[in-house]
Amino acid sequence: MIKHMNAVPINNVTIEDSFWAKRQQLVRETVIPYQWEALNDTIPGAEPSHTIENFRIASGELKADYYGMVFQDSDLAKWLEAVGYALSGKRDEKLEAIADGVIDLLERAQQSDGYLNTYFTVAKPGKKWTNLRDDHELYCAGHLIEAAVAYYEATGKRKMVDIMSRYADHMVDVFGKEPGQIRGYDGHPEIELALVRLYRVTGNTLYLELSRFFVEERGQEPYFFDIEESQRTEHRVARRKADYFQAHLPVREQKTAEGHAVRALYLFSGAVDLAVEYNDRELLEVCKELWRNVTRKRMYITGGVGSNENWESFTIDYDLPNDRAYTETCASISLMFLASRLLQIEADREYADVMERVLYNGILSGISLDGKGYFYVNPLEVWPAACDIRDDLRSVARTRQAWFGCACCPPNIARLIASLGQYIYSYNENDREWFVHLYIGGQAHQTIDGHQVQLTQQSNYPWDGNISFTVAMEQEQSAEFTLALRLPGWCKEASLKVNGEAVELTSITSKGYAKLKRVWASGDRIELVLPMTVEKVRSNPKVRENIGKLALQRGPIVFCLEETDNGDNLRDIRVSGSGEFVVHHEDGLLDGIVFLRGNAWRTDKASYDEDSLYSTVPYSSTPVQVKAIPYYAWANREPGEMLVWLHEDRG
Amino acid sequence: MIKHMNAVPINNVTIEDSFWAKRQQLVRETVIPYQWEALNDTIPGAEPSHTIENFRIASGELKADYYGMVFQDSDLAKWLEAVGYALSGKRDEKLEAIADGVIDLLERAQQSDGYLNTYFTVAKPGKKWTNLRDDHELYCAGHLIEAAVAYYEATGKRKMVDIMSRYADHMVDVFGKEPGQIRGYDGHPEIELALVRLYRVTGNTLYLELSRFFVEERGQEPYFFDIEESQRTEHRVARRKADYFQAHLPVREQKTAEGHAVRALYLFSGAVDLAVEYNDRELLEVCKELWRNVTRKRMYITGGVGSNENWESFTIDYDLPNDRAYTETCASISLMFLASRLLQIEADREYADVMERVLYNGILSGISLDGKGYFYVNPLEVWPAACDIRDDLRSVARTRQAWFGCACCPPNIARLIASLGQYIYSYNENDREWFVHLYIGGQAHQTIDGHQVQLTQQSNYPWDGNISFTVAMEQEQSAEFTLALRLPGWCKEASLKVNGEAVELTSITSKGYAKLKRVWASGDRIELVLPMTVEKVRSNPKVRENIGKLALQRGPIVFCLEETDNGDNLRDIRVSGSGEFVVHHEDGLLDGIVFLRGNAWRTDKASYDEDSLYSTVPYSSTPVQVKAIPYYAWANREPGEMLVWLHEDRG
Repeated sequence: MIKHMNAVPINNVTIEDSFWAKRQQLVRETVIPYQWEALNDTIPGAEPSHTIENFRIASGELKADYYGMVFQDSDLAKWLEAVGYALSGKRDEKLEAIADGVIDLLERAQQSDGYLNTYFTVAKPGKKWTNLRDDHELYCAGHLIEAAVAYYEATGKRKMVDIMSRYADHMVDVFGKEPGQIRGYDGHPEIELALVRLYRVTGNTLYLELSRFFVEERGQEPYFFDIEESQRTEHRVARRKADYFQAHLPVREQKTAEGHAVRALYLFSGAVDLAVEYNDRELLEVCKELWRNVTRKRMYITGGVGSNENWESFTIDYDLPNDRAYTETCASISLMFLASRLLQIEADREYADVMERVLYNGILSGISLDGKGYFYVNPLEVWPAACDIRDDLRSVARTRQAWFGCACCPPNIARLIASLGQYIYSYNENDREWFVHLYIGGQAHQTIDGHQVQLTQQSNYPWDGNISFTVAMEQEQSAEFTLALRLPGWCKEASLKVNGEAVELTSITSKGYAKLKRVWASGDRIELVLPMTVEKVRSNPKVRENIGKLALQRGPIVFCLEETDNGDNLRDIRVSGSGEFVVHHEDGLLDGIVFLRGNAWRTDKASYDEDSLYSTVPYSSTPVQVKAIPYYAWANREPGEMLVWLHEDRG
Repeated sequence: MIKHMNAVPINNVTIEDSFWAKRQQLVRETVIPYQWEALNDTIPGAEPSHTIENFRIASGELKADYYGMVFQDSDLAKWLEAVGYALSGKRDEKLEAIADGVIDLLERAQQSDGYLNTYFTVAKPGKKWTNLRDDHELYCAGHLIEAAVAYYEATGKRKMVDIMSRYADHMVDVFGKEPGQIRGYDGHPEIELALVRLYRVTGNTLYLELSRFFVEERGQEPYFFDIEESQRTEHRVARRKADYFQAHLPVREQKTAEGHAVRALYLFSGAVDLAVEYNDRELLEVCKELWRNVTRKRMYITGGVGSNENWESFTIDYDLPNDRAYTETCASISLMFLASRLLQIEADREYADVMERVLYNGILSGISLDGKGYFYVNPLEVWPAACDIRDDLRSVARTRQAWFGCACCPPNIARLIASLGQYIYSYNENDREWFVHLYIGGQAHQTIDGHQVQLTQQSNYPWDGNISFTVAMEQEQSAEFTLALRLPGWCKEASLKVNGEAVELTSITSKGYAKLKRVWASGDRIELVLPMTVEKVRSNPKVRENIGKLALQRGPIVFCLEETDNGDNLRDIRVSGSGEFVVHHEDGLLDGIVFLRGNAWRTDKASYDEDSLYSTVPYSSTPVQVKAIPYYAWANREPGEMLVWLHEDRG
């Protein structure tokens, strides 16, 4: 069997810290209500969503036309999934009443055979399952299944699981290799990982089998999408290359991550789930090779992936342009999904480091500090005036938008933040190892050897690397287990104390986790110190875009310069590789960030001719002070330029 | 009156040197015959042109369908114009017979009212002049007029001038402010400058008036293109913004060069011609302000302009990305047109310097050494693997193509090279000043004070800055005039001797021209030394793309690195701002170029982890030798990366 630990479930974890707790509160109190209004088209000035309307039309309650993307249903699904996570450990009658109402609406919109998709029910009756490549039916179903599972796990209310099980039963009939069945798969992976989740709560192995069928069929010859297309009379969407859908090769033969980044990472995530369930080491190795390709060759320092705007896709190794970085928020989220899954199989900090990197940078940049603005695209450099006119920068927004017509990212980031509790800890029953992957203050509960153990984590992360843990059990009890603390890759000199006594780390550290095996009892206290020095990060020199440049990172936070702090033409700022950056904190600034100040140079204006483009006389430099803020916090003040990778001056 | 000198006409100039003479020969012996075949669709494997076929169909000799762009006629026009220049001073019976045949064909294709355009005659009868915005009728007419004038000036054969005069007479009837006339202008400027040329050979002021009408009407409200569009039922071409056509404002109110670069520069060139003819200083100042905007804010070091692929357009000041540089060959050529026109009005080396820059770099890169391959797009950096997959680099070709479906550039560069003689010298009758703008070996004749003066120029330019001139007149004659030699902006220490005696330059130099006023007689010899040091050029720091980088230039030649000489990942090569580059010459290499060798650094492979994208440990460098070749000569060997702007390392 593939060894596997399990995430300590979200119901057993509370987040109580100064960073994430307020964000979770924001999601509960602002984002979820706001998105509910968006789904109901009651936000003045926002692009219409029409999502609830579509379900009402599908249910027969309303006569009107369908409006929205073909995958509009998934917006509601992601919202409902976020609601599920938000209710975990924090029930809320009013919100549940709304969600229960939505679930009732879903039931009324469901067809008698279990089918549930408003686009086809309303806009294309009789055409269902005729364009799996483009029409996102199984994708929407997958998100609804995830919502059903999350809501059930949070509330114990099974109704939506039952609705989605009826839909999944219908899929089991429709898809497969038997005559009369469709031997195909969805253009946008998602159903694969969703069916595994549904199997895990229902125990129905047919769902697991169907997920495996979808993963294994993909990319087999003859190509399903070609067959399907030849049978269609309507060709609404321009043809895309097979690798856009990861259908260019059977998954087991793929060695590099190709095509649409979100599609790829959802697919690989589902494949990892299947590898575990079927003890399929070969499939796991395929997924790990794809993981390595993504994270070692195709990932921005922010954890963003999918550099190409055109197909929201991966391109080639080391092609990571900063101003044209597409790096969709959803792609960052899907990388976190893959990272967390591989981490459960192998407690190697490599996975947790990426998870942390993308969480604090590429994901968090997708939402404004007030929770009301969203980035779909997360570039590492923005020159607004060029974005206004250059078509190749057309996707780059300079301010976060309220809501998108294609609103995949806002509800996705809401569900991610709401579900954050499940990424912090894992427990390995066999070895009695309790892993701490992320340093997020709060409490976690785990039953160990029959005892209820509570672990309280305290930290001011990500601003401070002093983290403490306190063990609590019922009076007089004790339990032997291993507490495994991640020593992040960014930290060069971690130190650890247990009950005040220093612990030598080297001998107890394995794959980046310091393993404290002992008999623990109430009151035991662990102090972990992860010194957060300001690091100057260089890219692998094969990343052409970043040669001669460095980025500033402190702890997990990647920094950037904004025009409002540093003036325009940020590229003209050159920093020394050996210069010091001083850490500052200002309560009122950007909701209480740590920022950096340091010395740098700019070209001396007196040394060049404004009216001349080219000169054979070298320019002189003038010293300037720069101020760097966390990347995720940019675009929360005046619009302007932004830059992550700074020219390094060795002079 | 606006003071004005005149180009010494092409018939009075021969080019006899080691650089351009062979290129002119190539145009005559290879390019013109090759393009003739292309126009006749007899080149295996090349994209079909169908140009001659279209004329044959229009003339009624052939029944078939029109094929090609709406402006396909202009390919023939540019070819015929090149033929005209090629015949200047070098008559060729066989070629003239072909050209005469073409002119006969044109005459047969002309309609009884003078109209001559195969697209409308064949494909859209009855629709002529209904879509001036998109359909290039006046643009094609303009190129045919230019061809007519060039052929007439070279051969004295007037037939095509007569054909085009009949067409222009028709235009005079059709366009204007009178009732029943079309108060409009073409979407692609070209007719404006062409009508001035036609006026100059025919003396018919109606043509000049019509040209002025076209220039003055452009951009006036109500907008003609809107009116025209409202009257069309067919909408074939997606609407473009008015500035694409320079129709966003009246020309006199334009202060920056906007929209499609070729359109803009053809328009401004025509406007300069009108400013001269009408002694219109206001219009001249407008053109000069636009010139300054282009050359001081929006021009690559190669002289390329129009950085934006999407509309082949200008964007904003200092937006000059290297890998996405569009810099169409035709745009470079049109910048030379504008430069040469302004130069005739004001003998300031600013104009000649740009003319030289674009000629030796941005224009010459458009044609392969063998004359059979063409670049439409001329980027300053190419990473082929990224171009293969990135949509934003889709226009970047890695190898020159044989011919294009939209074949504007190949015949345009052919006509430019064939006509090069007319850009070398000017003569100002009033002041008896004979200007030398370009250092291209050969002979020129000028009548001065009744004497025939011959000037022989000898040089190994652009490889060597030692240039000599010899004056020849009939025995015993002499004439007082000023010989004005351009001291190029790239040269820091020019020196000059007349008949062996050094001449102090400062006192005789005005706006970059050294003016030798004296009584000249046969045998007088001038020796100009322009030391060609290797210059390290930096960009204005507002050009974000080039901060921290330098380019190598020697004389007028901008250099680049190619992968075949320097390995891949050229951006990883860092050169010192103070390091020496040594000049080499190798006869067999790229048709006898000068190339540069120098020391540089690359990241030491041992200092970074192949499998890691980001590192907090600085990498070490290893010394390498680099070899730089002239930019224009790239892509004549194995395909691979190319780079102009190199990282500067101050270490």
